[in-house]
Amino acid sequence: MNPDENFQHSHIFGIEQFSVQDINHILATARSFKEIADRPIKKVPTLRGKTVINLFFEPSTRTRLSFEIAAKRMSADTFNISASTSSATKGETLTDTAKNLEAMSPDAIIIRHSSSGAPQLLAKHINASVLNAGDGTHEHPSQGLLDMMTVLEHKGQIEGLKIAIIGDISHSRVAMSDIIGFTRMGGHVHIAGPRTFMPPHIEKMGATVCESVREAVEDADVVMALRIQHERQNDSLIPSLREYARFYGINNQVLQAARPDAIVMHPGPVNRGVEMNPDVVDGKRSVILDQVSNGVAVRMALLYLVIGGSRSEQGGAQ
Amino acid sequence: MNPDENFQHSHIFGIEQFSVQDINHILATARSFKEIADRPIKKVPTLRGKTVINLFFEPSTRTRLSFEIAAKRMSADTFNISASTSSATKGETLTDTAKNLEAMSPDAIIIRHSSSGAPQLLAKHINASVLNAGDGTHEHPSQGLLDMMTVLEHKGQIEGLKIAIIGDISHSRVAMSDIIGFTRMGGHVHIAGPRTFMPPHIEKMGATVCESVREAVEDADVVMALRIQHERQNDSLIPSLREYARFYGINNQVLQAARPDAIVMHPGPVNRGVEMNPDVVDGKRSVILDQVSNGVAVRMALLYLVIGGSRSEQGGAQ
Amino acid sequence: MNPDENFQHSHIFGIEQFSVQDINHILATARSFKEIADRPIKKVPTLRGKTVINLFFEPSTRTRLSFEIAAKRMSADTFNISASTSSATKGETLTDTAKNLEAMSPDAIIIRHSSSGAPQLLAKHINASVLNAGDGTHEHPSQGLLDMMTVLEHKGQIEGLKIAIIGDISHSRVAMSDIIGFTRMGGHVHIAGPRTFMPPHIEKMGATVCESVREAVEDADVVMALRIQHERQNDSLIPSLREYARFYGINNQVLQAARPDAIVMHPGPVNRGVEMNPDVVDGKRSVILDQVSNGVAVRMALLYLVIGGSRSEQGGAQ
Repeated sequence: MNPDENFQHSHIFGIEQFSVQDINHILATARSFKEIADRPIKKVPTLRGKTVINLFFEPSTRTRLSFEIAAKRMSADTFNISASTSSATKGETLTDTAKNLEAMSPDAIIIRHSSSGAPQLLAKHINASVLNAGDGTHEHPSQGLLDMMTVLEHKGQIEGLKIAIIGDISHSRVAMSDIIGFTRMGGHVHIAGPRTFMPPHIEKMGATVCESVREAVEDADVVMALRIQHERQNDSLIPSLREYARFYGINNQVLQAARPDAIVMHPGPVNRGVEMNPDVVDGKRSVILDQVSNGVAVRMALLYLVIGGSRSEQGGAQ
Repeated sequence: MNPDENFQHSHIFGIEQFSVQDINHILATARSFKEIADRPIKKVPTLRGKTVINLFFEPSTRTRLSFEIAAKRMSADTFNISASTSSATKGETLTDTAKNLEAMSPDAIIIRHSSSGAPQLLAKHINASVLNAGDGTHEHPSQGLLDMMTVLEHKGQIEGLKIAIIGDISHSRVAMSDIIGFTRMGGHVHIAGPRTFMPPHIEKMGATVCESVREAVEDADVVMALRIQHERQNDSLIPSLREYARFYGINNQVLQAARPDAIVMHPGPVNRGVEMNPDVVDGKRSVILDQVSNGVAVRMALLYLVIGGSRSEQGGAQ
Repeated sequence: MNPDENFQHSHIFGIEQFSVQDINHILATARSFKEIADRPIKKVPTLRGKTVINLFFEPSTRTRLSFEIAAKRMSADTFNISASTSSATKGETLTDTAKNLEAMSPDAIIIRHSSSGAPQLLAKHINASVLNAGDGTHEHPSQGLLDMMTVLEHKGQIEGLKIAIIGDISHSRVAMSDIIGFTRMGGHVHIAGPRTFMPPHIEKMGATVCESVREAVEDADVVMALRIQHERQNDSLIPSLREYARFYGINNQVLQAARPDAIVMHPGPVNRGVEMNPDVVDGKRSVILDQVSNGVAVRMALLYLVIGGSRSEQGGAQ
């Protein structure tokens, strides 16, 4: 396996930038890395001597850990910078942060930031590859890719599938990446949720806005609930959690409308009993933990494609 | 050295689970690892490619650092998650955390938690080995083992020794692990402290409750003071620090009642002048820093026994 | 390259301890390490199996990251302890911290502390090499060295140069290390800033106190602005930021008085528009990012000289 030259030294800002061929190539690469997690020695030398910086301006355990595990399993040196300890508190701008990090010669910077477009701004001032780990309400491309990988594992294809995404679409970068990705791969994304959670013009992105959860879920192959993001909402617009669970929560009754072989997804962490009932989270249709496992594999693939393979003798997964 | 098959892929919840033979085996393994700390290159490949996660729901520098050093000296990849940055703040349950970590294929999870029993709960939902780094007022097994290792180094045996433990027994998971461990190894544990610090039924665990510090220390081979844990106490029951020092603090006068060759221990960090006088902390009888050194060796042994040696060619300490 | 035996197992407290020969040796070593940052595999085995602890009692992203990158590029195992998570909050003294860390057999401890002299205190109780990463208002030797390295890169020599340092000299450990270093190397340091920012007796250290920024900058080869350190000042003595920028800020007009080939420096992070105008920060004369790059190289050199090369087969940069 040789990294696609199209990816080398590139940035990963969003699913938007990828063609169908790109997505298939990333996911094929991710599948080849996935089995490393089952080995007694979960480590390949692919990125030895590479410097990977996690630059997180929003708190995150899962995504940061997933990227850190991905990088270390390929023998990269990893460094964590979190907003609370960064010189952001000293008034340094993101641009200055970028230039200063660049001067330390990193190979990749993984950034999470509350402002949409922060990764692009960072990339303007740095030679390192920038990987977006979630920017504002824009995109979360590694999540979109791991969701596609998970659907492919269980369904064999995305083309022609009905994918229902339920919840706060307008504040969800996960939803954005998923709508772009699944639509590009030929899937039909149907969304539902409180009206205040439906972004304007979302149908132009290819999603079908449904009047009810029932309508979105009916005959769906994939049912995904999004996390209620209390911290990103205008309080007066939020339905109470009890109301939300009643009208928009995914439970077994709602799932009866889906195809018998439908799978259930959630980007995590789940508010059990709010957007999804515990028996669904832990039920047979749930592939939520497959999403987590695939997250490590997808992030290994992304890091490998953008910063690996600069010399032929480094090889790929071994 | 081959890891005992009894330990492979097991969990370390407490000293309670170990037989005398188990304890001897762990400590023999720890002794074989101890000399690595004195080498110019303090690193063996024993756990190369293993994923070790420190999951700390209570702040800790020493224990976390000791486990991290132990893991890295055996070439494991380590990851730190602290409660303040974890998705605990997003309302995720420990069970969900466990399942999500499991999906990232760790080999070992080292957990510190304010709730007794948290490691067992974690272990129910994970294939990785769980190592208890302190749970509520239950146990702190690696501390108990390093204490036994330290006594064995200085006394050659535990059987027949009188071990005095002074302080807040009822809130101390260290005391619990020590009482179980030393008693099991044939030592005689005598405890003393304010009445409100003595747990009910503690004598059933084999400890002798003394009326005074003097009585506990008299002819003791080992004198251990516990740390005053302000944060875990019901305020109205706490004697003032000055009172505590006067009645329960270990000073040279108190130590005159012990055997001439008695050693002095403390799990650290010491409140100097409260539970122990500075001249005792730094005195000739103090083996407090030996405890710290042995902590790294014991934690190397535990990690090696539970996640090392899955393939014959990995070998042990080299 | 063999580490100078004068440095092995020594401590780095300040530029004050170095002879001209020492400084030249450190900087030559740093230059030999610098090209590692440009390699596809940015890693040498020089410090494999060494334990390097970052012990930061003040928040820092840049210096901590720079030391961590330096250590990992030489294959050392690194551990981060920050004050907020350390047992400092449990009342442990620095002395006890030192002894406890020592018991874990580290090779080097990099310390940042708000008290001048903290590194010396730490070193008294530890066999590991202590590297000062900034102590109170005393010294920040690795910054002083990287500043000298940067001037040498651009000017070829320090002897005879006029170096202007503008700002809060009295609260700046960077200024202290720079005044000592540049003066020792034969440079002429001229300082300027608000009167309340000029320490008494500073002229005894070899610096010339100027009446105005203009006087300091006139015909200067190097113009360095210091960061306004709000957190270290007595509020009533601080000029407003607008006043400060007007009278002491470095802008292109001020720079016209300097030599045509003068370089502009800043230890970072810059308060843009306060101590330095954005067009100067990003201008052709600015070598601020060279300072950052040289920081990694200087820290590799310091770590190599004090803890590397204990065995002949380890070698240096390879």
